[in-house]
Amino acid sequence: MMLFELEAALEFSNDIEGQKGEIEEVLVNADKELFKRGAPKGKENEASQLRGWSVKGRVLNVSIVSGRYVRAPDALLRLRNQLNLLGTKIKAGIRKVEIKKLEVKGVELGREPKQPIKIAFYVDKIEVKGDKADIKFSPSLTVDVIEGGGVDRIIELVVEKAERQEYEGKAEIKKLLWESKTKEMLFDKDPSSELEGINWIRRTHAKGQFVYGRNFTSLVNALREILVEELYKPLGFREMIFPKFEPWDVPKKSGHAKSIYPDAYYVMVPKVSSPKEWEETMDYFRITGEIHKESIMRKVEPVGILSYAQCPPFWQFLEGRVVKGESLPLKVYDWSGPTYRNEAGGTHGIARVEEFHRAETLFIGSPEEVIKIEKEVEEKLTFILDELLDLEVRKYSVIPWWMSQEGEKKLSDKANEGVGTVDFEAYLPYRGEREKSEWLEIQNISVIGEKYPKAFSVKSSRGELWSGCGGGSFERWICTFLAQKGFDKEKWPAEVVKRVKIEDEVKFA
Amino acid sequence: MMLFELEAALEFSNDIEGQKGEIEEVLVNADKELFKRGAPKGKENEASQLRGWSVKGRVLNVSIVSGRYVRAPDALLRLRNQLNLLGTKIKAGIRKVEIKKLEVKGVELGREPKQPIKIAFYVDKIEVKGDKADIKFSPSLTVDVIEGGGVDRIIELVVEKAERQEYEGKAEIKKLLWESKTKEMLFDKDPSSELEGINWIRRTHAKGQFVYGRNFTSLVNALREILVEELYKPLGFREMIFPKFEPWDVPKKSGHAKSIYPDAYYVMVPKVSSPKEWEETMDYFRITGEIHKESIMRKVEPVGILSYAQCPPFWQFLEGRVVKGESLPLKVYDWSGPTYRNEAGGTHGIARVEEFHRAETLFIGSPEEVIKIEKEVEEKLTFILDELLDLEVRKYSVIPWWMSQEGEKKLSDKANEGVGTVDFEAYLPYRGEREKSEWLEIQNISVIGEKYPKAFSVKSSRGELWSGCGGGSFERWICTFLAQKGFDKEKWPAEVVKRVKIEDEVKFA
Repeated sequence: MMLFELEAALEFSNDIEGQKGEIEEVLVNADKELFKRGAPKGKENEASQLRGWSVKGRVLNVSIVSGRYVRAPDALLRLRNQLNLLGTKIKAGIRKVEIKKLEVKGVELGREPKQPIKIAFYVDKIEVKGDKADIKFSPSLTVDVIEGGGVDRIIELVVEKAERQEYEGKAEIKKLLWESKTKEMLFDKDPSSELEGINWIRRTHAKGQFVYGRNFTSLVNALREILVEELYKPLGFREMIFPKFEPWDVPKKSGHAKSIYPDAYYVMVPKVSSPKEWEETMDYFRITGEIHKESIMRKVEPVGILSYAQCPPFWQFLEGRVVKGESLPLKVYDWSGPTYRNEAGGTHGIARVEEFHRAETLFIGSPEEVIKIEKEVEEKLTFILDELLDLEVRKYSVIPWWMSQEGEKKLSDKANEGVGTVDFEAYLPYRGEREKSEWLEIQNISVIGEKYPKAFSVKSSRGELWSGCGGGSFERWICTFLAQKGFDKEKWPAEVVKRVKIEDEVKFA
Repeated sequence: MMLFELEAALEFSNDIEGQKGEIEEVLVNADKELFKRGAPKGKENEASQLRGWSVKGRVLNVSIVSGRYVRAPDALLRLRNQLNLLGTKIKAGIRKVEIKKLEVKGVELGREPKQPIKIAFYVDKIEVKGDKADIKFSPSLTVDVIEGGGVDRIIELVVEKAERQEYEGKAEIKKLLWESKTKEMLFDKDPSSELEGINWIRRTHAKGQFVYGRNFTSLVNALREILVEELYKPLGFREMIFPKFEPWDVPKKSGHAKSIYPDAYYVMVPKVSSPKEWEETMDYFRITGEIHKESIMRKVEPVGILSYAQCPPFWQFLEGRVVKGESLPLKVYDWSGPTYRNEAGGTHGIARVEEFHRAETLFIGSPEEVIKIEKEVEEKLTFILDELLDLEVRKYSVIPWWMSQEGEKKLSDKANEGVGTVDFEAYLPYRGEREKSEWLEIQNISVIGEKYPKAFSVKSSRGELWSGCGGGSFERWICTFLAQKGFDKEKWPAEVVKRVKIEDEVKFA
């Protein structure tokens, strides 16, 4: 059973030694009533209890213990408010509340963690005993953090970190849904080196970034046209322009702020924009020809990240609103700029770049509509990849390992029925034999469920609101296309040939 | 006359008091020959002279003066190399060179500066006497900085800062080249507020950024189609994809690193990408729901900026190469993503945004070709804006104020004949009467000359290589279009009507 032990000092604006009577009355009543209010019937003994108190000068010290209902930190907040109501009577208000001690004992982890669990803020020590943990909070814990729900979040985080240790490194579970026929491969080299050799693309000074020449861009546009004509138009999707810089509000709401940090491209802007303020940095470049990074770091502030998953910034379009039924389902796509990913594991040609170009497909509606649209998009994508482009591909359904472990529980969870992702993977002959080499993930399509509407407070005037989305980078589509079909345009599928214009690229002496 | 006074201490790896004879020989010869080599005939008295020297322990102290030819800092570098050749003979090499004193007297500023001139690095004091300055360098000046040309660059910078004081706040000089007929205005409100009101666009949480809905995007695409059909295709331009993140190399070469800092969006990536490294930042968000900016600033490094002028990152495609004549002129355009500008002066609706979408036009060839293409593009743009879109616009030629002041000198400068910019400005009726209100700059087109090919070391196999470029944001084109034509599609020009699809935008309850 989880146990909270709390000691706090409440400092008043005046000496309260003369008001002990009034204070005692509040404390005794609180212990009887306020500390129990809301606890399930029969569980009042698991709610907060006042264990002791004392007054010295302006300070009231209290000691509170509790089980899981009306936890001690919550009881402290209630007590503070009640004492403040006393203000006019005792001519003193609470000026400061200091948490002298907070310990939570017997937090159930659901498993025995293999490594120590650490929390970087507000926690001094986490002691693990079998599948339980005792959390000793540090003096840096403030009432503000408690009021913001921080104690609960820390407990959740401890449980989650224990859980994560178990799943770490465990891959997602993939289930083969479908595979195209085996197709004739017309090429066996890595198309990226080939593309560089014929000047269709060129590496920049940045990691995992290319400039794309006219022929390559023509191929990109051919694929775009195919998607527009064969998928977006027939299914009633229309184009929008999603922002590509994401202010912090977006990853905070989308949940990416939980974990995106190692993979993000960060955006900073000047704290002060006057040229005077930047003279030092300008002088340094003029004198040395180098960038004065140190002064830049002093003069900028982080305002967000570059778009990573492409659809999250869209949600600002609907945020906080109730969408009328007649506007649903909403089907849109975006192709207005690159998204970014810092690839810790390294980049590889156009198969893994850091600046990449993606058509993002997004649909919003009732759960039934979203599930239906996902199926339609999936079918069109299959048709385009398999028949029009004649590529050798496979479809997988993907679930994270932890979900597969809790499978039965999740699957019986009505609210999430239908949520899931389908991945398209393509064979790259230059990587080796079909069954022995890693295939390239080139496209996915997901039913996300209620996640984004909830996160951005978007409602429907006619009930439940879900969303789905999908994306695939043109770098990867073209990598696959050229890896399987080669560079001889005569042998490309007609649908591509009729849409591209291949001419001599720039030649160098 | 400019005068250099230098004192330096050269520290050897061993005691050199016993080698005074050998050292004296080198010094005397250097003073006679090495310190004068390269000075114009008859100007040897303005080259470096050894004023004195002494040896103590491992240290040789020298004092050198000079006029403008073979300046004292350069003489010191020559002397160091010469002494190092002595190494095997005296069994000692130079381990360290310390600049004890460097003063440059009588730097000609060309004008009397109104305010003190300051340099943030390597300089202690700048004393201005009339139109001349004495620069006293600080002990932080190293031989490395001298070798990198830092002393010359500091002198140039002092002169430039004096010059800039004079021009500061002085506008560019505009000359009206052409104006369209006065046209009937069909609207008198600010289209941005209107667009927000009907949900065609929506402000995001970022400054000067919008999400663009389906109808607005359809208008953008109509303009793109018009540009492609009426300008790019007939003139033989083809599309490329330019990078949108610019690693430092790009602004360093393009010269933007001289001054872009107050206006830039900076990009940072993690120094270390492992999730472990970021646990602190992740924990903080999980506990408080806020971003831990302080730890982000510690864990990232600045790697460049977001594209600002759109064409500079293209140059990495040709960098360091000799382009064959048959590939010239090269005519390309880019429409692959937004560019960014931190607007210190504030943003305004879609007339001034920070994330904006631009078609960038770029052409490269001989000076004659570039000048000819600029004219052709200018004519097509005029046709599109004036006739197809039926907008009230004006064309100006624009020269910076300083250039107009040095007009005669510049104009007689053969190498730059033809270099210049044409701006298109549009009337916005909601801002007031034609002659009393500020018009909106919506497009420009320039002959840049040899600047970019030089900066990125690009050559042509058939001689001189120039470039030209132009851009205009669709936010501004559409702002102008709606400000003059209003929202009644019936009254829009046929060329737009046939290309747009306007339907109900999303409706909110």
